Amino acid sequence: MGIRWHEKTAERTKSIHGSFNLPLDELFVHPDPIFFAGGTPSPEFLPIDHLREANYRAWDVTNETMYYGDTEGYAPLRERISERMKQRNVDVSADQILVTNGAQQGLDLLSRLLLDPGDTVLVEAPTYFGALQVFDMYQAQYQSIEMDLDGMIPESLETALKAAHRPKFIYSIPTNHNPTGVTIAPGRRQELLEIADRYNVPFVEDDPYGELWFGEHGSPPMRADSEDVIYLGTFSKTIVPAIRMGWMCAPEAILQRLIDAKEASDISSDRIVQRMVVEATSHGWLDGHLMKARADYAERMKLLNASLEQHMPEGTTWTSPGGGFFVWVTLPDGADSYKILFDIAKDGAIYLPGQIFYVDGRISPSFRLGFTTLPMHQYEEGIARLGAALKRIL
Amino acid sequence: MGIRWHEKTAERTKSIHGSFNLPLDELFVHPDPIFFAGGTPSPEFLPIDHLREANYRAWDVTNETMYYGDTEGYAPLRERISERMKQRNVDVSADQILVTNGAQQGLDLLSRLLLDPGDTVLVEAPTYFGALQVFDMYQAQYQSIEMDLDGMIPESLETALKAAHRPKFIYSIPTNHNPTGVTIAPGRRQELLEIADRYNVPFVEDDPYGELWFGEHGSPPMRADSEDVIYLGTFSKTIVPAIRMGWMCAPEAILQRLIDAKEASDISSDRIVQRMVVEATSHGWLDGHLMKARADYAERMKLLNASLEQHMPEGTTWTSPGGGFFVWVTLPDGADSYKILFDIAKDGAIYLPGQIFYVDGRISPSFRLGFTTLPMHQYEEGIARLGAALKRIL
Repeated sequence: MGIRWHEKTAERTKSIHGSFNLPLDELFVHPDPIFFAGGTPSPEFLPIDHLREANYRAWDVTNETMYYGDTEGYAPLRERISERMKQRNVDVSADQILVTNGAQQGLDLLSRLLLDPGDTVLVEAPTYFGALQVFDMYQAQYQSIEMDLDGMIPESLETALKAAHRPKFIYSIPTNHNPTGVTIAPGRRQELLEIADRYNVPFVEDDPYGELWFGEHGSPPMRADSEDVIYLGTFSKTIVPAIRMGWMCAPEAILQRLIDAKEASDISSDRIVQRMVVEATSHGWLDGHLMKARADYAERMKLLNASLEQHMPEGTTWTSPGGGFFVWVTLPDGADSYKILFDIAKDGAIYLPGQIFYVDGRISPSFRLGFTTLPMHQYEEGIARLGAALKRIL
Repeated sequence: MGIRWHEKTAERTKSIHGSFNLPLDELFVHPDPIFFAGGTPSPEFLPIDHLREANYRAWDVTNETMYYGDTEGYAPLRERISERMKQRNVDVSADQILVTNGAQQGLDLLSRLLLDPGDTVLVEAPTYFGALQVFDMYQAQYQSIEMDLDGMIPESLETALKAAHRPKFIYSIPTNHNPTGVTIAPGRRQELLEIADRYNVPFVEDDPYGELWFGEHGSPPMRADSEDVIYLGTFSKTIVPAIRMGWMCAPEAILQRLIDAKEASDISSDRIVQRMVVEATSHGWLDGHLMKARADYAERMKLLNASLEQHMPEGTTWTSPGGGFFVWVTLPDGADSYKILFDIAKDGAIYLPGQIFYVDGRISPSFRLGFTTLPMHQYEEGIARLGAALKRIL
């Protein structure tokens, strides 16, 4: 009877895939494995009781709130976000903000607006694989922009723009980057934005880690430097991932179409959860919460650093993030971090190998360590296992 | 400097639009207008206190719940949905269910999976305009399937399938249809599914009103007749629209790809809201709630019917829904319900004219009345105004 309708799916489905491609069953082979994944807040900083109370107060509503509405987002929440962004030197009004189901939905709406099949997205090398999952669904092509310890390299951005077929946007995590932990240096930001402007391609700033700095103060978003930057924010890393609440700021020329795309996608975000976030972030609670989290994460990073110093084979290097959740470790002598992982995993340590963060799937001597999710003593034990395995293998 | 990037949006953006196209500012011209919109539950059936308590209990969680997870949906919620569907003769297991942000997101994920630009969606004439908002974004073409008081007409389905260029699915609201209120007759269902099967095109059942019957019992979903039916459910009409919680059941052959598409879109639905729905629907609460709502809506429909009998011009006909939120009124002598609305609105009555529910934008003598949202005395007053205006104009 020929092919069934199930098989006649859209062209884009050829590139539907899960978030990353790593055969976890072949890696979880130790009786007590330590997995350095962790792109999420520490268990100590999950404010369950606070959110429960905030959520209860969020139900002080009229009937009107129970219907459809707020496609662009609950006005007091957009006001709150605007205030918080102003604290970080970004002059954005509530009217310029669209509430989304986490930053992930922002990426989806943006791709919907800008990407035709075969269009190019310029991404950092390495980059966040969850973003690729979205862009792939819109049949994007890619150009890689190389990075160093000061973030995206301007010359490489220009090279990538020159090589790109129908470039549509530059996707970047400028601050406390995933997976490397680096931040684009202040002296480089203006130059990058000028290049983007010269090539008439918007700069998309994904900023999940921007508020999680370790020192005295953090870096302002790139959006502080240009109103043309499309900014994606989220409460997933500062409050909790489970509540799916984020936002985007976009130039007026495209904002209404993003709101219409949001309406077509799911009408609006949950109206009570939006009120909960307003209640939860009242009276400076989030600033106090973040102050404690920042100090704790900075301490963890220091301890991780000490463990790496103690256990890594000679010639290994790693980044010193100014914030965020990740350290990027680079092995000496062109080791293939993907290939050797299957051997290392037998000793009970698992990292995310560099290769899965590159659009060109290049062999990489680097890997990502998250340091916020597991108890610190496990990281010490894990790094010891990792170091021993590496010394055995390399 | 040529066109700016803002204007170089994707091809699909030509068809991004709001939910329906009606110049409301030209219609809200009376000092106290009565707007028969109302695709939402009555104010009396908004269970705010119950949901607040359920939501509070939903925070009895472990840290694990606060992270990312549950892309396919919270297992106990999927179990609960499965139980409820079994009560309606649909044998669907929790494993066959994907939780979505309302049925709207189900439509989006399905379109993502099945629609290439230019593919045809077959829709009822008339149909729900919010669905068209989604399909349009995927650059769908349409074929209309005509309806009568027994719902979709099999011969018209076959004609539409024959005429369709790359038909991808049949979109239907089989039970208590929006906007007409009719239900596909039991004797017609098997025939329609056989035609769909013969043409190898899936039947998509959007079922927001299926649980809101007025008589002794409702009609089972079309999904009860065939596992190949793609079913979309929602709590928007049975609990409240604001919480954005729905689900879809799809054949195994496409379910995992829908889950992956959901992950790319927004990672998962809110994990606490999913728990809240489980808490809220425990101990038979939803059945009791619906029993009261059904009786109330049936009473409203009866009163609306009496008002229509009293005030409509001779030759006007209307449907007698077995459930749901809508009555479809048809004026005599080929009146153009869109054109005359601007005159009627001056008298303070506003309906949704038939034309906005047709993909071919045909002139229609019909219009939709919702009867669940406003207080009943306002409907009586509104129908009196409408009748007087119609008698003046026609």
